[in-house]
Amino acid sequence: MSMLNETHDPALQSWVASANVAGCDFPIQNLPFASFKRKGSSEALRCGVAIGDQILDLKALAALGALQGEAQRAAEAGAQTQLNTLMGLGPQVWSALRLALSRGLRTGAAQQGVWQACLVPQAEAEFGLPARIGDYTDFYTSIYHATNIGKQFRPDNPLLPNYQWIPIGYHGRSSSIVVSGQPFKRPVGQTKAPDAAQPTVKASARMDIELELGVFIGTSNALGDPVAITEAEDHVFGLCLLNDWSARDIQPWEYQPLGPFLAKNFASHISPWIVTMEALAPYRTAFVRPEGDPQPLPYLNSAHNREAGALDIHLAVDLQTSQMRAAGDKPVQITSTNYRHAYWTVAQMVAHHTVGGCNLQPGDLLGTGTLSGPSLDQAAALIELTTGGKNPISLPNGETRTWLEDGDSIVLRGWCEKPGAARIGFGECEGTLLPARKL
Amino acid sequence: MSMLNETHDPALQSWVASANVAGCDFPIQNLPFASFKRKGSSEALRCGVAIGDQILDLKALAALGALQGEAQRAAEAGAQTQLNTLMGLGPQVWSALRLALSRGLRTGAAQQGVWQACLVPQAEAEFGLPARIGDYTDFYTSIYHATNIGKQFRPDNPLLPNYQWIPIGYHGRSSSIVVSGQPFKRPVGQTKAPDAAQPTVKASARMDIELELGVFIGTSNALGDPVAITEAEDHVFGLCLLNDWSARDIQPWEYQPLGPFLAKNFASHISPWIVTMEALAPYRTAFVRPEGDPQPLPYLNSAHNREAGALDIHLAVDLQTSQMRAAGDKPVQITSTNYRHAYWTVAQMVAHHTVGGCNLQPGDLLGTGTLSGPSLDQAAALIELTTGGKNPISLPNGETRTWLEDGDSIVLRGWCEKPGAARIGFGECEGTLLPARKL
Repeated sequence: MSMLNETHDPALQSWVASANVAGCDFPIQNLPFASFKRKGSSEALRCGVAIGDQILDLKALAALGALQGEAQRAAEAGAQTQLNTLMGLGPQVWSALRLALSRGLRTGAAQQGVWQACLVPQAEAEFGLPARIGDYTDFYTSIYHATNIGKQFRPDNPLLPNYQWIPIGYHGRSSSIVVSGQPFKRPVGQTKAPDAAQPTVKASARMDIELELGVFIGTSNALGDPVAITEAEDHVFGLCLLNDWSARDIQPWEYQPLGPFLAKNFASHISPWIVTMEALAPYRTAFVRPEGDPQPLPYLNSAHNREAGALDIHLAVDLQTSQMRAAGDKPVQITSTNYRHAYWTVAQMVAHHTVGGCNLQPGDLLGTGTLSGPSLDQAAALIELTTGGKNPISLPNGETRTWLEDGDSIVLRGWCEKPGAARIGFGECEGTLLPARKL
Repeated sequence: MSMLNETHDPALQSWVASANVAGCDFPIQNLPFASFKRKGSSEALRCGVAIGDQILDLKALAALGALQGEAQRAAEAGAQTQLNTLMGLGPQVWSALRLALSRGLRTGAAQQGVWQACLVPQAEAEFGLPARIGDYTDFYTSIYHATNIGKQFRPDNPLLPNYQWIPIGYHGRSSSIVVSGQPFKRPVGQTKAPDAAQPTVKASARMDIELELGVFIGTSNALGDPVAITEAEDHVFGLCLLNDWSARDIQPWEYQPLGPFLAKNFASHISPWIVTMEALAPYRTAFVRPEGDPQPLPYLNSAHNREAGALDIHLAVDLQTSQMRAAGDKPVQITSTNYRHAYWTVAQMVAHHTVGGCNLQPGDLLGTGTLSGPSLDQAAALIELTTGGKNPISLPNGETRTWLEDGDSIVLRGWCEKPGAARIGFGECEGTLLPARKL
C-alpha cells in the first residue's frame, strides 16, 4: 500500500488556501490524523485530518454520508474519540479514505461547499492522545546513540555484541504518555553518587530529552502468530514525534539488571498528529549497512526493506528557556538529525517484536529510540550533546545548558522535503518542565 | 480499610453449602472477584464473586436492586464486562460491597430465596481477564530469586548493590497476559551460545515458569502525584496468581542493556480470581529485614509496613506432563514457598512506582517477581530448582524435567491458613505449553 499514487502528486493544490502556502506542514499530500475538540468546550473528542491550518472533522464528515464504501466506513470509525478503530481497519481502508479526502479537498472539488462546514481551525482546537495506547515499547535503533551513551555508562564496552543482531527494545509505560502541550513536573527519585555510601531521594538534577519518532500500530496480530517482515508495514498506521524525557541521575542507579524504569515513566510527550505510512511513501530510502557489519538474520531481512525500508525524515529540537520566553525570544534549535540514519527500520521493529508470538494491537506505540545521527552535532539527547554534562550548550542570549532547567520548553519538529515531492511535516511536540514537587 | 471486621469471623457459614466444606478455596470469608460468562454461550462477560463452587453474578444481583447505597453502586459497576470501574471506586465502596455480600450469603440470610437465582456454577463458567490491564509492571521482590539467578547470569556479582535500596521493577507487556486455561505456543527467538560465532533463530529450549503474585491496582493517582506509603494499600484492589513464563535462552542474549523483552512477552497467565486486600487482612504479618541490611528509605518505610506489610500466602506449583495426563496421573507438586519471604511489600511497590510521578490506573497489574523462598526447595522457577538445567527434577512416573517440554501443564496454587482464621484460597492458574510454530 506504500506505492506512489495520485495523492502524492506534488502539483496538487487544495481549496483550503493555507494548505498551499510554501513550508506548510499540512499540504494536501500529507493528511495526518489527530483526536481533537474545540478548546475549552464540553464537546467529545473525535478524530480529524489536518489540511493547512484547519482540521477536517471526520465525525462531521461521516455524518454527511458523502463518502462511499470503505472510505465512508473509515470516516465513521474516525467519528470515535480516538483512532483505535480506524487503525484496526487496515491499509486498504486507510488508503481508500486518503484517496477520498485528497479528491474532496482538491481545488475545484465539487464537495467544497458541503465540506467547508466540517472544518475547524487548528488555532481553536485542543488535542487528545490520538489513540488509546495499550502497550508502549521503546526501541534503541540509532547505533550512534547506543555507542555514545554506551561510552558513558560502560566506557570499556560501549556497543554490546547483540546490538548489530537484535533491534534492542524494552517495554515502556503507556499511562504517562501525554500529548504535546501538557506541562509536567521534574521527577523525584533515588540517585546515588558513585562515592556516596547510600542513595538519597531528591529531584532529578540531570533532566534530558530524547528525540524519537513514535510508530503507531494499525492492524493487530494474534497472540502466537508472528508478523513476517514482508507484511510488517501493513500493520503500521503512521508515525508521530516522541520525546522520551529521561532522568539521567535516576537511570544509572536503578537500571541494572532489568532496565530503565522510573527514569523514564514520569512523562513522555507525543505530537497530536500521526503522519501515515502512505503519506511518507515518497520519502522511502535504502538502508545499506556499513561495510563489515553482519547482514540481518532472515526474519529481519527483505529486498523491500533493504531498498526502501528507511525513511528520510528531518528532525530538530528547539529550546525556549523561561528567560527567553519572558524576553519574547523565539525557541532556538539545539540539534537536528535525520531518521534515515537508524540502524533498524520500522518493519524490522515489528518483525522482531512479534517473532516470539507477542501480539500487537491497534494503537500500540513503538518508539524508535533516540535518533542521534553519525556526528555529535546530530545527537538527539543532551547527555550526548553535552558529553554527560561536561560541555554546556551556549544559547544566543548568553544562557548555557547542560541539563534542562525548570521552565524550559522543548519543541520537537519533523518534516520531509526533496525535489520532486511535496514537503510534508509532523507539526510540533512541545513539553514544558515544571519544578519538582516539594520534598 | 484492612482491619478485621465481621466479614472475617471464622465461624461464619454460608447458605451455599459448598462454601462450608473444609479446604474450599472460596468460603464466605474470601469473596474474590472474576469476569465470567456461561461456557460456550454468547452472553456478555460480567463480573462475579466466588462462593463455594458457585459464582454470584453481580450483573444479576445489581438488576435486583436489592443492595443499598455504596454496595449497590459497586454491584452496578460489577455488571460491566471487567472490574476496572469497580476497582476505581475505592476501598470504602469495595468494603461496603463485601459487607453486603457477606451478610446476604450467610446462613439464615433473608436474601437467600432471591439471591439463589444469581448463582452460576463455576463448572459451567468460562473466565475472561478480570480487568483491562492498561500497564503491567514486574517487580523482583524476592532477594532469594535475585541472588540465585544473579549467580547464574553474573557469577562474580549476584546481588547488585541497588537491590536492598530499590524495589527493582521494569515494565512488562500487557497485551499478552491471558487468563488461566488458555494454551500458548513455545516461543521462537534469537539465542546465542557463548561459543557460537553468531546467533540463531529457533524455538526456545529452556522454557521456564515464574511463580508470582499479581497485584491489581484499584484507585488511580494523577500523573505527577506520588502515593505515600501510608496511603499505598488504599490503591490496591487485590491479588491474583501470576505465571510469568520465561525463555531462559532468549533472555541472556537480548537483555543487555535495557532488560528482558521477548524472553517474557509471548504469554503470561493469571488466575481468574482476584482475592481482595480486605479478605487477606487476617494474614498480614511483620516484615523484619535481616540484621545488617539497610532500613528502607523514608518513602518506603512506615510503622504499618514494618508491622503488617507482609502477607502470609502459601504458594505451590504443580506439573502434569502429557505422559501423566495420558495415564490419568494427577499433577505433582514440584515446589512450594510463601509470599511472606518477599524483601519488598505491596505498599513499597506502589510507593516506589509512583515516587517520580508515574500514574497508576484501575486495572494496572504489578507482578511481585518470582517468589523464591530462602531454601532451594522453595525456589519458584526451574532455573533455580534445576540450577540452570544441570540438576533435573525426577517425577514419580520416572520422567525428569530440567526445562518444560511440549504438552506440560503448570498449575499455580495459593492459599492462606492459620489457627483462628478461615482458610481462603486463590483457585488455580493453569497454562499448557504447545509446540512451537513451524520454522
